[in-house]
Amino acid sequence: MNRKVKEITPDISRKVVERLPRYYRYLRKLLSEDVRRISSVGLAARMGVTASQIRQDLNCFGDFGRQGYGYNVAELYDIIGELLGVEEKYRAVIIGAGNLGRFLATSKTFMTRGVYLKAIFDVDEKLIGKEFSGIAVQNMSEFENYCSKNQVDIAVLTVPADKAAEVYGRICALDISGVWNFTGVELPHGKNIIVQNVHLGDQLMNLCYHIHENKMKSENTDN
Amino acid sequence: MNRKVKEITPDISRKVVERLPRYYRYLRKLLSEDVRRISSVGLAARMGVTASQIRQDLNCFGDFGRQGYGYNVAELYDIIGELLGVEEKYRAVIIGAGNLGRFLATSKTFMTRGVYLKAIFDVDEKLIGKEFSGIAVQNMSEFENYCSKNQVDIAVLTVPADKAAEVYGRICALDISGVWNFTGVELPHGKNIIVQNVHLGDQLMNLCYHIHENKMKSENTDN
Repeated sequence: MNRKVKEITPDISRKVVERLPRYYRYLRKLLSEDVRRISSVGLAARMGVTASQIRQDLNCFGDFGRQGYGYNVAELYDIIGELLGVEEKYRAVIIGAGNLGRFLATSKTFMTRGVYLKAIFDVDEKLIGKEFSGIAVQNMSEFENYCSKNQVDIAVLTVPADKAAEVYGRICALDISGVWNFTGVELPHGKNIIVQNVHLGDQLMNLCYHIHENKMKSENTDN
Repeated sequence: MNRKVKEITPDISRKVVERLPRYYRYLRKLLSEDVRRISSVGLAARMGVTASQIRQDLNCFGDFGRQGYGYNVAELYDIIGELLGVEEKYRAVIIGAGNLGRFLATSKTFMTRGVYLKAIFDVDEKLIGKEFSGIAVQNMSEFENYCSKNQVDIAVLTVPADKAAEVYGRICALDISGVWNFTGVELPHGKNIIVQNVHLGDQLMNLCYHIHENKMKSENTDN
C-alpha cells in the first residue's frame, strides 16, 4: 500500500473512533445541502451534542477548525473518511439472498461508505440468477471459486443462525478481511478476520428497557 | 400498573444496563441446552469476558450467584428479563413491508424478547393483504384507525428515508411509547416517545475501520 494514510494513534480513545461514523453521516448531509463550512456550535446543534465535545473529538486528529471560520465541511468529510478507511474501497459479497440480504443489496449503505458490493450468494436454486441492484445471485457452491478469482474484503452474512458456523468456517479458509454478521450467532474474530456482530434483538431489548424506564418515571411523577 | 417490578436504580451504570441484553441472549442459549446452573467462570468463558466483570455486573441487581453453586440460569434469565421490561409484553407494528420489514416480521427477534408483532402497514397497494408470519399487510391509511382501537407500544419504522419525518409525525400524534427506527434518518426522542435509531452504515464503517487498523498493524509487523 503506497497511499499515505493518517494513522489513528493508540492514545485516541476507541470511543472517539466509534463516534466518527456519525460525524461522517452528518457531514455528508451538510455536503448534500451544499453547506461548505460550519462552526462547532452549528454542528453541535445539528448533532445534539455539545460544541466542546465536537472540538475535543476532532482535535484528536489534527487542527481542523479555524477560529472565526469553523470547519471546512468537505475537508473534514474526506479526512474522517480516510481515517475510517473509506478510501480503501473494499469489495463485499452478501451470503444469503433472503429478505435481509436483498434489503442490504438494494440499500445505499455500501455505496455511501465506499464499499463495493460485487456478488451475492445463496443455496436456494429458485433465487440463483435473480438480480438485485444489477447483481445476479450465484450458487453458494461457487463461493470459493469466485473468491479465488476476485478480491473479496468483506463477507456480509445473512444466512439463518443454524448455518452461521459452517459458512464462517468456509470464509475463514479464504483471504477475507472482515465479516458483517447478521446471523444472531456471535462469531469470534479470526486471526486475520474482523467480525462485526449485529444483534438487532439486543437493540430491541434496549428500546424496551428505555420505554419501561420512561413509564416508571412518569408513574413516579404522577404519584 | 400493579405488577411489582424491580427498579434499576440510578447508581447502576447505563453501561451495565446496555450489557444486559447480551447476558439475556447467552442465558437463553443455556436454557435451550438445558443447562440449569453455571459458574461466573463458566459463563465468562462462553461470553469471552472475565468472571469478575460478570460478578460485578450482576451484583448490581442483587445477590444471585452462590459460592460453590453459581448462577441459577432460569432465575437469572427471568430477573434480567424483568429488569429489561420483557414482562411488559409490548405490542409492536411494522410500518413498511419492504425487504427489511418482511425480514423483521418473519424473524424470531420480537417473540424471543417478549414483544408481540400485531400489524404491518404499507402504502403499496400490491402488498396490502399479503401475509407475513400470518399477519396481513394493511393500508397505511388505516394506521391511525388501527391504533385508536388497539394498543400499540412500539412502531418499527422501515420506510424509505424521505418518508421518515412524515411517518414519525403521525406516530407522535398517537399514544405510542417507542420507535425502532431503521430509516437511517436520526429521529429525536419525543416527550413520551423513546426512539432507538439504528444506523447500519455506522456499523459497516466501524468494521471497515477495524479491517484498516488490522492491516496497518500487520504491515507494521511485516516491516
